[in-house]
Amino acid sequence: MRVLGLDPGLATVGFGVVTVSHGKFEPGQYGVVTTPANVPLSRRLDTIYSDAETLLSQLKPDAVAIEELFFGANITTGLTVAHARGVLLLATFRSGIPAYEYTPSQVKQSVAGYGKADKRQVQAMVTRLLGLDAIPRPDDAADALAIALCHCRAATSLMFNDSSI
Amino acid sequence: MRVLGLDPGLATVGFGVVTVSHGKFEPGQYGVVTTPANVPLSRRLDTIYSDAETLLSQLKPDAVAIEELFFGANITTGLTVAHARGVLLLATFRSGIPAYEYTPSQVKQSVAGYGKADKRQVQAMVTRLLGLDAIPRPDDAADALAIALCHCRAATSLMFNDSSI
Repeated sequence: MRVLGLDPGLATVGFGVVTVSHGKFEPGQYGVVTTPANVPLSRRLDTIYSDAETLLSQLKPDAVAIEELFFGANITTGLTVAHARGVLLLATFRSGIPAYEYTPSQVKQSVAGYGKADKRQVQAMVTRLLGLDAIPRPDDAADALAIALCHCRAATSLMFNDSSI
Repeated sequence: MRVLGLDPGLATVGFGVVTVSHGKFEPGQYGVVTTPANVPLSRRLDTIYSDAETLLSQLKPDAVAIEELFFGANITTGLTVAHARGVLLLATFRSGIPAYEYTPSQVKQSVAGYGKADKRQVQAMVTRLLGLDAIPRPDDAADALAIALCHCRAATSLMFNDSSI
């Protein structure tokens, strides 16, 4: 099973592919989609949508895993990220690929074994689980790989709750 | 100039057309796009996107005016509305029609002459400015007409700041 993890954002969307086969994880392509700050919101959303369409058709994942938004401090940032997440979900729906969402703490729990693990602990576990030589860069790509890993583990466990969004 | 006002939401998107010619306002088609609560978020966003595409191609507005999100109390609602607003902006961008955004208080100020006007005052002014016999229903459609009126007034004033989003 090939899973595309997406870490939503307006300036930067992280993406990362993880393939799981017989309980073994393999990293696929990973990176980021970026949009410049000095162009209108509508155009940035269009770039994110178009790039997501391209990624979905080129990487051909069996499932998409996307982080659920959780905002304590900065509501304004949360609202702009939610615009971007909306178009990512739209592109995924239109590609016919099922999408699954996980909270940040579910991702941390799944990857690092602790729902309050810090960024470095999660990145270290992503690197180890995928047999990489170094922590994937940039951070948003590493986060996307963590989300993909989380879905791989959920989907291959007996406790998988098949509730796509 | 024909303006399509959009009042974003996940369960209900209000829309309303206002045409302004020689300082006189005329109401066009108005109503709501609704999505059921018991279907996945991705599918609801797809419905909103498809219906927005249909409205834009059928109503052929010169401009789209959309409410800016402002959330004090309910952040979770704000995040879901922002998903819907993202796909509305995407549909508008892809139609080639410019989009403009206004805060709730700008709409109230423009339509009712007072930035803290209540819902009923705004609805009464929408009804009067458009020469309607009764307050447009449902509320979200009346809100969308108010947003369209706000843009008509801004776009035809000397103070218009042409910064589309």
